[in-house]
Amino acid sequence: MTKTYESREIRLAERPQGMPGPATFELAKTEVPEPGPRQVLVRNTWMSVDPYMRGRMDDGDSYIAPFAIGAPLDGHAIGEVVASRADIPVGATVAHFAGWREYALLDAETVTALDISLDRPQDHLGVLGQTGFTAYLAVTEFARVRAGDVVFVSGAAGAVGSVAGQLARKFGAATVIGSAGGPDKARALTDTFGFDIGLDYRAGAIGDQLRAAAPGGIDVYIDNVGGDHLEAALDALTMRGRAALVGMISGYNTPVPGPRNLYNVVTKHLSLQGVLVTEYLDRQPAYTARAARWVADGSLRGAETIVDGIENAPDAFLGMLRGANIGKMLVRL
Amino acid sequence: MTKTYESREIRLAERPQGMPGPATFELAKTEVPEPGPRQVLVRNTWMSVDPYMRGRMDDGDSYIAPFAIGAPLDGHAIGEVVASRADIPVGATVAHFAGWREYALLDAETVTALDISLDRPQDHLGVLGQTGFTAYLAVTEFARVRAGDVVFVSGAAGAVGSVAGQLARKFGAATVIGSAGGPDKARALTDTFGFDIGLDYRAGAIGDQLRAAAPGGIDVYIDNVGGDHLEAALDALTMRGRAALVGMISGYNTPVPGPRNLYNVVTKHLSLQGVLVTEYLDRQPAYTARAARWVADGSLRGAETIVDGIENAPDAFLGMLRGANIGKMLVRL
Repeated sequence: MTKTYESREIRLAERPQGMPGPATFELAKTEVPEPGPRQVLVRNTWMSVDPYMRGRMDDGDSYIAPFAIGAPLDGHAIGEVVASRADIPVGATVAHFAGWREYALLDAETVTALDISLDRPQDHLGVLGQTGFTAYLAVTEFARVRAGDVVFVSGAAGAVGSVAGQLARKFGAATVIGSAGGPDKARALTDTFGFDIGLDYRAGAIGDQLRAAAPGGIDVYIDNVGGDHLEAALDALTMRGRAALVGMISGYNTPVPGPRNLYNVVTKHLSLQGVLVTEYLDRQPAYTARAARWVADGSLRGAETIVDGIENAPDAFLGMLRGANIGKMLVRL
Repeated sequence: MTKTYESREIRLAERPQGMPGPATFELAKTEVPEPGPRQVLVRNTWMSVDPYMRGRMDDGDSYIAPFAIGAPLDGHAIGEVVASRADIPVGATVAHFAGWREYALLDAETVTALDISLDRPQDHLGVLGQTGFTAYLAVTEFARVRAGDVVFVSGAAGAVGSVAGQLARKFGAATVIGSAGGPDKARALTDTFGFDIGLDYRAGAIGDQLRAAAPGGIDVYIDNVGGDHLEAALDALTMRGRAALVGMISGYNTPVPGPRNLYNVVTKHLSLQGVLVTEYLDRQPAYTARAARWVADGSLRGAETIVDGIENAPDAFLGMLRGANIGKMLVRL
């Protein structure tokens, strides 16, 4: 008789209209069988909740397939191999894309073994993972931060923003300004992540605050928010300014008006580049190796907000959408 | 006693609110003296009216100084030297920036002598001048048109758009789609400028028309219009699509809403680049030489709508803002 593993998983119960809520999710029990040939069974230890997952809850064409109703959600996760019929040994720590569940049965070719002798495993979901790599691409490839730049990062206390601000500094920025929601997160920008100025966008119009923080304007904008933040940045960018558009979380649940000042792109000869990390995954291992040295020498800090238990993963996701996290929002299983 | 030349010029009478009108302009007589040392006196034969001049009628910071109330307007013009105390001979045809007047007294270093043995002088204000060079930069440098691309050009019957469509074809585009206002201009796109499809944006929502014309989407967008055209293009652009933003004439006189779908820039990894030709003027002579060969061999067509007389220059400008021109709008003096 085949052994099975009792597991719990989070499924999409219904497509949300606007902000998701508890009814969006369903916690279900399931039995996961032992691995077949060239498969491994992974007990997940950490899983990622990310803003882009909100888009996958809607139906429609996108760069990534929508979640299916009644099926488990997925996303980046870390786990330990507990049974194997492939050349990855039991006990190995692996990264894969079958999050939102306690046990995952996976083809071995879809998992990546991690050397965690020096790193914390959960950093491979944050500063050393796709999140950090997204920030790296935004700063180096698309916003092309150079020595002396004044850089503004929105959503700067979040997983991508907090790394982007630190990398902007590392690549020569003279002044790094960030925005976040609330005084605690704004203070974390300067105290934890080394920004020069942390703006609390709830304390006043972001455009006014940005003008005061950067009276000479900004050279680079890293956008995680969209909406009023993008409009403020378009006004503040100087000639030949560069914006890397990573996310627009302000509009994920409720429509926000488009920026009324896009003509600045023409008159200031601006560059706006979307950053879609999935187009560059072949370069992620090189980033991870480089960033691991920065984390080890203390010059790059990962940070996370941790929620425990698969049953609380929906709350972690909803909290992340509301901005409850500082650094990467993670679920520990 | 010093000889003077009776001249007429157009001055800015008042800053327009919204669409300019006759009260925006003042026709004035003036006396222009003979040239001093290192100066030339030029009798203007052609002058350019361009959309960007609308921005110069407003006060405020921009890449180019605003027009001053009570002073003559300026802009690109072509003329003949009628008196000279410099090494440019009487009779030479020259290009300069003192348009909107019949006679211009100029420091010789601010004028460029033209070899018009092969070209029509007025082409140096259009297809061979800054207008054509803007289209060239948009197509080659910023939208990076490649073999097989599906290209959409808005404002395609205008001075920049009509050249951009032809150059997109020359640089390998498989399908070139243009939009213009009214059936005559839409027809001119295919009949005069060699576009594959000419859309009349007044005949229906541009988004619907673009979807029908390019069911597989577009790879490149050259924007001269902004507003609904930009929004339609953001929906139609395919993965890694490129947009060169040259102008946004739809919003120059009345505010238009910003595009509500900028998140496409993130999810489709788009590039949006503003095109400010004044940043690249050192490369314009090489373009002019190259484009003159294309005009001579018939593979690139300049076209113009001509208004006669300095007194009608305001009407030419207002007509251009309303889209009365096919090709470059010029005033013949």
